[in-house]
Amino acid sequence: MGVEERRQQLIGVALDLFSRRSPDEVSIDEIATAAGISRPLVYHYFPGKLSLYEAALKRASEDLASRFAEPREGPLGARLLRVMSRYFDFVDEHGPGFSALMRGGPAVGSSTTNALIDSVRQAAYDQMLSHLGVTEASPRLELVVRSWISLAESTALLWLDGRRVPRAELELQLVHDFAALAAVGAAHDADMAELLRTMAKDEPADGPFAELVGRLVALGY
Amino acid sequence: MGVEERRQQLIGVALDLFSRRSPDEVSIDEIATAAGISRPLVYHYFPGKLSLYEAALKRASEDLASRFAEPREGPLGARLLRVMSRYFDFVDEHGPGFSALMRGGPAVGSSTTNALIDSVRQAAYDQMLSHLGVTEASPRLELVVRSWISLAESTALLWLDGRRVPRAELELQLVHDFAALAAVGAAHDADMAELLRTMAKDEPADGPFAELVGRLVALGY
Repeated sequence: MGVEERRQQLIGVALDLFSRRSPDEVSIDEIATAAGISRPLVYHYFPGKLSLYEAALKRASEDLASRFAEPREGPLGARLLRVMSRYFDFVDEHGPGFSALMRGGPAVGSSTTNALIDSVRQAAYDQMLSHLGVTEASPRLELVVRSWISLAESTALLWLDGRRVPRAELELQLVHDFAALAAVGAAHDADMAELLRTMAKDEPADGPFAELVGRLVALGY
Repeated sequence: MGVEERRQQLIGVALDLFSRRSPDEVSIDEIATAAGISRPLVYHYFPGKLSLYEAALKRASEDLASRFAEPREGPLGARLLRVMSRYFDFVDEHGPGFSALMRGGPAVGSSTTNALIDSVRQAAYDQMLSHLGVTEASPRLELVVRSWISLAESTALLWLDGRRVPRAELELQLVHDFAALAAVGAAHDADMAELLRTMAKDEPADGPFAELVGRLVALGY
């Protein structure tokens, strides 16, 4: 194998291990064994566990960011639902590593890892604005979108802790949460009200936004 | 001064400095100067900056947790609004230190600091359940309450970053967000629907929950 090929293979093996258990439980020896090479050879490619962890995390964060990409076609609610489904796929695939990373701690809280987390949040934010057809967000819209992204994170972390609510329900709930937070934003801000009107205009009667309204009406609200 | 009295004074001085700037920018020399004692004397009471930081953070976290305490009297919406006002008081008083802590990083992300953050989140969660009159939360209710607490954190952090929306509006918005997330929960879960009905029953026409509904109706929803 060439140098770059070997590095990429090691990153893949490490990411798999770092995903399935808390990263501080994974040793270089274990990574070497899983990759079928010697421990000194691992150190030949990566100076230490942290640099290998950061490389694995970089790959994972690019993967996660890509899951927010979605063609700008069709109604918004259905698009968000597809994005949430891919988001939970990712969370499912990387569960223990995702939890350890997002809960922070000495083993995973370096400035590099924080910068990678921020880059994923920024990519998700940019994608959301683009789906909303907005280039310059008002402070209120920025708040709605960024706080919804943090809501998606905390919902995913709570789901991983026992998986007591089926993930498909949570994917739909998060789309509904976005609509609900946007509606609260609209109740506070004229620009948000205008945006919500545009969002609602193209929603079909069987889309997730209409479904939320239908469920609330059925409850008597 | 007695030993305990001196320790408490140092914690107060350190907390003040750690609140006003990012903790990694605050030196032991500076704390000693602000306390009017020598650097070696600081080390006599605390073995290092981290232990002093953790002691200051412990005091701040007890302070923050106490702000969620609120008599179980009167309508829920008004209670939550008072809690949010005290929460933003805290965030305002400790802005830079709060940001640095919640954004994590090597200087502040020890397992002790993470445990303190978790203890505040748990105190807020317990208070919320108690306000809702619930002793055993369903998985869905737990999700709604815990994810709303994370929403309050991210909203406060975004507010600190430029303060582009008046805090009083955000305090009210967060109370509205809770109602909105509870409504979405109710659309997904019969127990949540029952709880929302109980919440709404005692709300006065001039309370924050009724105000949200009024604003949304005025927008044509």
